[in-house]
Amino acid sequence: MKKIAVLLSGCGVFDGSEIYETVITLLSIERNGATYQCFAPDKAQMHVVDHRTQDVNPNSKRNCLKEAARLARGEIKSLDELDIRDFDALIVPGGFGAAKNFSNFATNGAEATADEKVVTFCRAFANNNKPVGYMCIAPTLLPFVYGKGVKLTIGNDKATADALTTMGAKHIECDVDGIVFDEAHNIVTTPAYMLASSLTEAASGIEKLVDKVMSLTK
Amino acid sequence: MKKIAVLLSGCGVFDGSEIYETVITLLSIERNGATYQCFAPDKAQMHVVDHRTQDVNPNSKRNCLKEAARLARGEIKSLDELDIRDFDALIVPGGFGAAKNFSNFATNGAEATADEKVVTFCRAFANNNKPVGYMCIAPTLLPFVYGKGVKLTIGNDKATADALTTMGAKHIECDVDGIVFDEAHNIVTTPAYMLASSLTEAASGIEKLVDKVMSLTK
Repeated sequence: MKKIAVLLSGCGVFDGSEIYETVITLLSIERNGATYQCFAPDKAQMHVVDHRTQDVNPNSKRNCLKEAARLARGEIKSLDELDIRDFDALIVPGGFGAAKNFSNFATNGAEATADEKVVTFCRAFANNNKPVGYMCIAPTLLPFVYGKGVKLTIGNDKATADALTTMGAKHIECDVDGIVFDEAHNIVTTPAYMLASSLTEAASGIEKLVDKVMSLTK
Repeated sequence: MKKIAVLLSGCGVFDGSEIYETVITLLSIERNGATYQCFAPDKAQMHVVDHRTQDVNPNSKRNCLKEAARLARGEIKSLDELDIRDFDALIVPGGFGAAKNFSNFATNGAEATADEKVVTFCRAFANNNKPVGYMCIAPTLLPFVYGKGVKLTIGNDKATADALTTMGAKHIECDVDGIVFDEAHNIVTTPAYMLASSLTEAASGIEKLVDKVMSLTK
């Protein structure tokens, strides 16, 4: 049975992994006859956000791994537990956590720096030419993993696309139900909640991304 | 367009709403051509549980409404914002939060007491004979809302079923992909993660529950 690593950053769209994107991904992996293992960095989140008001709570601290465990019903591993030989592919859901806890793109844009352990984790898949799928804002991590020339989409947000171009990426505009495939690097991307206004819309692109990633596994 | 109220207790299987059950429910409502509004009680959670270790953190406090907002991308209302005329049905996902924050069934079993505001919220649907769907451990709330004689399932866990029988409910054993329908009270129940070992299994019953509830709306 094929096994897919899923990289999470927390639990909630404003400070962690987008919940709907993650669950649609896991369900789609299962419906492709494959299994998954969730991973997250064992570090403090950049922010803890009250999801009702969107206010950052400066006195609250939460850990990415512990919060991401909510999305995995407890079955989660830290990044250094990865044995790349066990996995056929990687999928990275979005949510602001992907641009706050994997890098600081959410606050620093094109000047962002990335978490070294996260980059090392993702590079294990790149170095072994294993297929990967990044959705929503998570493709902002790709220039750190694959270097310049990486082809990707984050939908059609001009400021984000311009920052990615500055970082050396080739941004392709894409609708919510579409995917962009970088054949040279074996990378699939989709806009998901960068554009989606409903779960059904988000699922339309995410399910295509998972199907494509699965088709690329050997 | 039909509109379904979804009652949440937090965000995470061990102290709030079960995330997969909630997302499968919301996606299934959308795919039935309906819309939804999430609600949660504005009160402290009974527990905050580290989902990696399952330890209760006695020094941590979280609010049901704020945490449930994560599952609703911020679009959540408190219980007293319900106008029953706006809604065609109610669906209540499970997770331990449904037996910790709606009542204290998780700690008190057949001797449990229920949150009065939660019971009032749920009774608005009962009093108007609007169809409802309760899944996983959430049916433990039904005796408080509908009184003795209510027919329901929580799967096949003997201790939980015996406690419900003591509370006056009529428990029917049910497989993960089945539903139980109490025609007299317009209530649909399914075991979901009381029995499920995968998202696909959980979805098999939850999708039937949502379809049945939708078919009962006028």
